[in-house]
Order: sequence, then structure tokens, then C-alpha cells
Amino acid sequence: MKVAYLGPRGTFTEMAAKILEKGSETIPYHSFSEALMAVEKGEADEAVVPFENSIEGVVNGTADCLIFDVNLYIQELLILPIRQCLIAKEGTKMENITRILSHPHAIPQCREFIEKYMPHAELVTESSTAEAIRKVSEAEYGTAGIGAECAAEMYGLSVLAEGIQNTDNNFTQFLRVSKKKNLEYVREKVTMCFSTTDEPGALYKILDIFSIFDINMSKIASRPMRNKPMEYVFLIDLDVNNNSKDIEDAIKLIERKSSFCKNLGCYDVRDNRLQK
Amino acid sequence: MKVAYLGPRGTFTEMAAKILEKGSETIPYHSFSEALMAVEKGEADEAVVPFENSIEGVVNGTADCLIFDVNLYIQELLILPIRQCLIAKEGTKMENITRILSHPHAIPQCREFIEKYMPHAELVTESSTAEAIRKVSEAEYGTAGIGAECAAEMYGLSVLAEGIQNTDNNFTQFLRVSKKKNLEYVREKVTMCFSTTDEPGALYKILDIFSIFDINMSKIASRPMRNKPMEYVFLIDLDVNNNSKDIEDAIKLIERKSSFCKNLGCYDVRDNRLQK
Repeated sequence: MKVAYLGPRGTFTEMAAKILEKGSETIPYHSFSEALMAVEKGEADEAVVPFENSIEGVVNGTADCLIFDVNLYIQELLILPIRQCLIAKEGTKMENITRILSHPHAIPQCREFIEKYMPHAELVTESSTAEAIRKVSEAEYGTAGIGAECAAEMYGLSVLAEGIQNTDNNFTQFLRVSKKKNLEYVREKVTMCFSTTDEPGALYKILDIFSIFDINMSKIASRPMRNKPMEYVFLIDLDVNNNSKDIEDAIKLIERKSSFCKNLGCYDVRDNRLQK
Repeated sequence: MKVAYLGPRGTFTEMAAKILEKGSETIPYHSFSEALMAVEKGEADEAVVPFENSIEGVVNGTADCLIFDVNLYIQELLILPIRQCLIAKEGTKMENITRILSHPHAIPQCREFIEKYMPHAELVTESSTAEAIRKVSEAEYGTAGIGAECAAEMYGLSVLAEGIQNTDNNFTQFLRVSKKKNLEYVREKVTMCFSTTDEPGALYKILDIFSIFDINMSKIASRPMRNKPMEYVFLIDLDVNNNSKDIEDAIKLIERKSSFCKNLGCYDVRDNRLQK
């Protein structure tokens, strides 16, 4: 089986792909949409992409592509703790670090550690944590990177400090998606999206449907509707609790009451937060 | 008056700051939070920051800082059309461009133009459109950048093509914020945020309040609650239509029924979409 994922190699998404797709061939792609389109076009059987980070929120690139561009379904969700590492060439001492490279999201995630130990270091943003670590492997001593432990291994570098993110509540949800239509409500969660007409109370009327059936909506996020300024698509998660028939009926009602509606699948959650 | 804004110079935010703050001294800051903190600490009187883009959605850095880190109020909202320009050294021809530098958001916004005219160009991401244009001014012929017209002027470069974004529905909302508490509901819009308890129907119960008072919620976005994984803060806009008393009463009810609530002010909207 071929599995597309958001590359490059040495990122947290590659770690997620390896956990979700044990033993399969994993192929890195440049962007969320290229990885998902590879499945849509049949170049790959499944894709693994980040969906939401506990600090940054929903990953817009993944959400927009699933909502607007492809017809794929979520097969499984993995919650992975994000443990950022300070990585440099072997023999580097923390007090000699003058430049730190990383992804724009990773730097603020580690701000407390940086301010405490390397307050004067220049902070440079790169397109991914793995690209930052690759550049560290080519740079002079004094340059460090922030990224995943697996990137240090990949480039033969040392981990100077582990788990340097500000909070242990930093984790990312990754999705495994494919063309398989899994719309039987027998697993833990359903993700769907819909948009409402632009009139007062439109969202309220949709949420009323869940209230009628006593269904818990565990997440709601909104994205701009493509080419319709100031209109939104709502992306929601519903908890399935032995209430398949209620969920089915509620979704039927939403399909009738919304101007756009798409079911992204019913799936189980694998929570790796307590694993080392 | 001193006005902090998200720099560097030569970005769309600087353009917004100049429109909103005609004649004031504008000071660029490195990040959303530094610009807003400058006002919080009294180093600047006002700040101008991007709040939402019609394609990318809410600007998380601005939203999170206003929700969690500062006590500032929105004084005015400016809607500015984003007209991306292809910028290079004078005399450069489009067919000779081999590298294009820009911000990670600007490149997909111009994908159709790039694929049509420069399909083989290498795409390089920089930390801002202005930084990309600065690098173009130092690079060899054959390198171009995508950014704001004002950046071309700043670095003495030529605009090879104007308005190269995929859609004319690309615009950004910028906020002018200060410490001035403007909670009288006599202007166009109110922005507020709240979080709900994690129980079924909690959001529905809050939206019920707007339904009772017939108040239109023109926007809703959600952000992760800081340090509370899987809990959300909702950021909403309410339309004020000669119903100040209703808005006041509704907000009082929300304050009582939510676990966290913050009013970000009542303000007017300046829409520059039709101006050249």
C-alpha cells in the first residue's frame, strides 16, 4: 500500500504516518493539497495529514482541501504529543548558540525555553522543522534547530534538549484518509461540514437539530466559503454514543437545511498522548 | 501619536496603518503580539494588525493575543483589497524569471498566474512579502518577488504585473486597536469572545440568546482555549442596527452563561474594496 503524507521526511507528520501505516510505503509530498490530491487521483491509497494542533487550531490547508477539493473520507484520527527538541551538531554547547532555525509555529511554541537559555539568539524561520534541521547539518557550529527527534537521527545531529515546548498540552491530531466511504455511524466520531444561508440565526437553527437529538458536538471551527466573501463553512465533530440512528437522522436534516453539506466520515480515535 | 503595526515596512499592514492613521508616526514590530503589547505597555497609542483574510480566514496570532494576552479594544475595522504584484529589477522580462520569492500565503494566492506564465520557476517562501521584495533587490536578474506595490517603490524595483492573485475576492480586514474602552453600542459592529462549558448543547444555548433578541451574528470563528485541550473560545461579530439595548442585554446574559467572556469593542467599518 502507498501512503502520501505532508513532507519533507523528518517531520511530526512522518512520525504520524509511520504509526498509522505500520510497514506501508510512505511518500512525502510538498503540501497538504498535493498529498490529498495524490489519493484523489489514485497515485496513493491513503494520505496522512495534520488536522488540528492544540495551540494553533485547525490546519487550514487540510481543512480547505477536504471541504472543497477532494472527495475523501477520514478513516482514523491519531493524537500525537508534540515534543520539540533543540538539535545541533555533536559537541555544540547551548551557551554558544547564536542562531535558531525552525518552522514559524515551532518558535513561539518554545519561546519560554529560548528566552531562558538563549535570549540573544537570532530566530530564523524555515518552511518546515525538518528543513530547519537539514540546514543545521550544513551550517557552522553555533546554529541550532528546533524539530522532531527523528530529524536529528536523519541528519546525524545531537539532541541538546528534549520536550522544550512551553506546555505539555501541545499535541496534534493527524488524519488517515482514503476514498473508502465510511458513513456507518458505528465508530467514535463523525466529522462533517456545512454552510448556512447568510440570514440571522441560520447557524442556530442547525445546532437546534443536534439539540433535538441530544447529540454532542465536540468541535466547531469555521473557514471562509471559497469565492463567497463573508460566508463561512462550519466544520464539526459529533460524538457517536450508541446513537447511530439519531446521528443518521440529524445529518439528513442538516443536509436539507444547509446550503452546502459534506460528510467526511465516521472513524475511531487513537490517542498516543500517554505513550513515550 | 505613535502607531505600532505588524512590520516590516512595505507590507499590506503598513498600507492599512497609513490609511487608518493618516499622518501619525508608524512603528513596525516583528510580530502581532509585539505590536499589540506595545500598546498594552504604553509604548504606542494604537496598533494596526490584520484580523481576517477572505481566503485564509482569521489571523490566529492577532485573535489569540486579543483574546488572551492584552486588554485592548477595537476602534475601527478597515477592509483592504489585496492586490498582489509581481516585482523585479527594472528591465527584467517575465519569461526570464527562474525564482519567485514571497510569503507562504501569497504564493498559493497567485498560483494560477504563476502556472500560466512561469510554470517552471522555483518557489521560495520568505517570512513576509516585504522581506521577499528586499531579497529581490539584492538578488541577480531572474529572481522576482510577489508583494505589495509599496514594497516595489521602497526598494526601487519595477512592478511587472499587478493584481496577479487568483481571485478578486481577496481582501483583508485590519483592526485599529487601543486602550480606549468603547462599549457603547452605537457603531456598526461588536466583536466579542466567549467560551462554553464542555457539555452537550453549550454553544447552542449561547446562540439561543441571540435568537431571543433577533441579533445577527455575522461571523463566528473558534480558537483553542489556551492550556485547555479540546476546549474552544468562540470569536463572534454582532451587527448593531439601532438595537443597542438588545445587544447590551444579550451580552449581559452571555457573560452570565459562559465560562469566559470578553468584549472587544463596538466600532465602525471602513470598506476600501471599491477604491483603486
